[in-house]
Amino acid sequence: MVDDRPPAVVLLSGGLDSATVLAMARDDGFAAHALSFDYGQRHRAELIAAALQAERGGAASHRVATIDLRAFGGSALTSDLAVPKDRDPEASGDEIPVTYVPARNTIFLSFALGLAEVLGARDVYLGVNAVDYSGYPDCRPAYIEAFGSMANLATRAGVESPDGSWLRIHAPLIEWSKVAIIRRGLELGVDYGLTHSCYDPVADAGRALGCRPCEHCDACLIRQRAFEELGGRDPALG
Amino acid sequence: MVDDRPPAVVLLSGGLDSATVLAMARDDGFAAHALSFDYGQRHRAELIAAALQAERGGAASHRVATIDLRAFGGSALTSDLAVPKDRDPEASGDEIPVTYVPARNTIFLSFALGLAEVLGARDVYLGVNAVDYSGYPDCRPAYIEAFGSMANLATRAGVESPDGSWLRIHAPLIEWSKVAIIRRGLELGVDYGLTHSCYDPVADAGRALGCRPCEHCDACLIRQRAFEELGGRDPALG
Repeated sequence: MVDDRPPAVVLLSGGLDSATVLAMARDDGFAAHALSFDYGQRHRAELIAAALQAERGGAASHRVATIDLRAFGGSALTSDLAVPKDRDPEASGDEIPVTYVPARNTIFLSFALGLAEVLGARDVYLGVNAVDYSGYPDCRPAYIEAFGSMANLATRAGVESPDGSWLRIHAPLIEWSKVAIIRRGLELGVDYGLTHSCYDPVADAGRALGCRPCEHCDACLIRQRAFEELGGRDPALG
Repeated sequence: MVDDRPPAVVLLSGGLDSATVLAMARDDGFAAHALSFDYGQRHRAELIAAALQAERGGAASHRVATIDLRAFGGSALTSDLAVPKDRDPEASGDEIPVTYVPARNTIFLSFALGLAEVLGARDVYLGVNAVDYSGYPDCRPAYIEAFGSMANLATRAGVESPDGSWLRIHAPLIEWSKVAIIRRGLELGVDYGLTHSCYDPVADAGRALGCRPCEHCDACLIRQRAFEELGGRDPALG
């Protein structure tokens, strides 16, 4: 069967936001080529979740690129930090998260740009959210726009396009609340039981992701509250 | 001994241009932290050359990051293409080079940005040259400038800097001829015998790089002509 939908690259982390964006890219009419990164994240459940989302979410393909964090010197980025529990997630402030990758979105988007070039895709989707990550410059609209301008100067297709807007970076969730994200995802049939957000999961061989959420870290609490606000329950809790 | 020079990141490919830029960064007063990439290039001599240049060129450190090209689908990028011999290098036109990396400079600069963030460096040096690579959009000044604007929006340090110009991308060779590059490098004491440019080297265990140049590919011819124009001989020829 020939897939005559235009291709798009979707950055798929295994979390709730990018699972939603994958469904939105499909809903927009694209053949969604998912791209995940193995950067030594503490929880491989993220990559398992991404693989299952790509499979069940109807991605046209799924790739996992390895990012070599040793290049950045290492220990500070991979050390075992304690995960705060049962605190007000809104109060998380300026702390560096456990899975910090320097220049993270820039590196991820650069690989997405490379894959777009190879696939002949003009569209890249990513699930950044400025509400969750207000402390991160590279989750703001101005950054996304600047990356797009740079990308259009970086590629032959971009330079040759009449209006210099070859690459379109879609960050549809950037101003959305978690409630709005989940509401849209549920409309599109996203199975949030296959998404992993927890910073401190508990091993559980009986589950598809090999673990269950701790239910007490910031990431777990943010999800729980959003599902409750929608009158339901986080399906990741089982 | 405390190194009180400010840190800079220098992208070091093992070739002639970036070896020159390493010397220029040191001459500008920086502690030069070299960053190379293992992207499955056909000739490991490039990485050996980069290591030797970092060592003898007085780099403050040298890192090699692995870029996972399998993420881009592979075969078209790693296939054994024939290397054209003894043709006019000026006539090379639009062909894709043997070691093509999609979104190459964007990916390389993204890693450099990450390393700059980790090192607290404001300065990144790279040896792109618009004269050699006129077909490549990502070797032009407009691209370098756009990457810098994006990088300053991507990082906390950039956003917090008063004029939004935290990161400075130095591409000092961008408009230089090969003759001008080599002339400057010789002034700064660069050992061009430790640089690798050849697309089709011949194994030679008796040499530091493990090979000698073919003397007939475009890259070899461009170097030879430049050294001859300066009244000398390419030291890579031995």
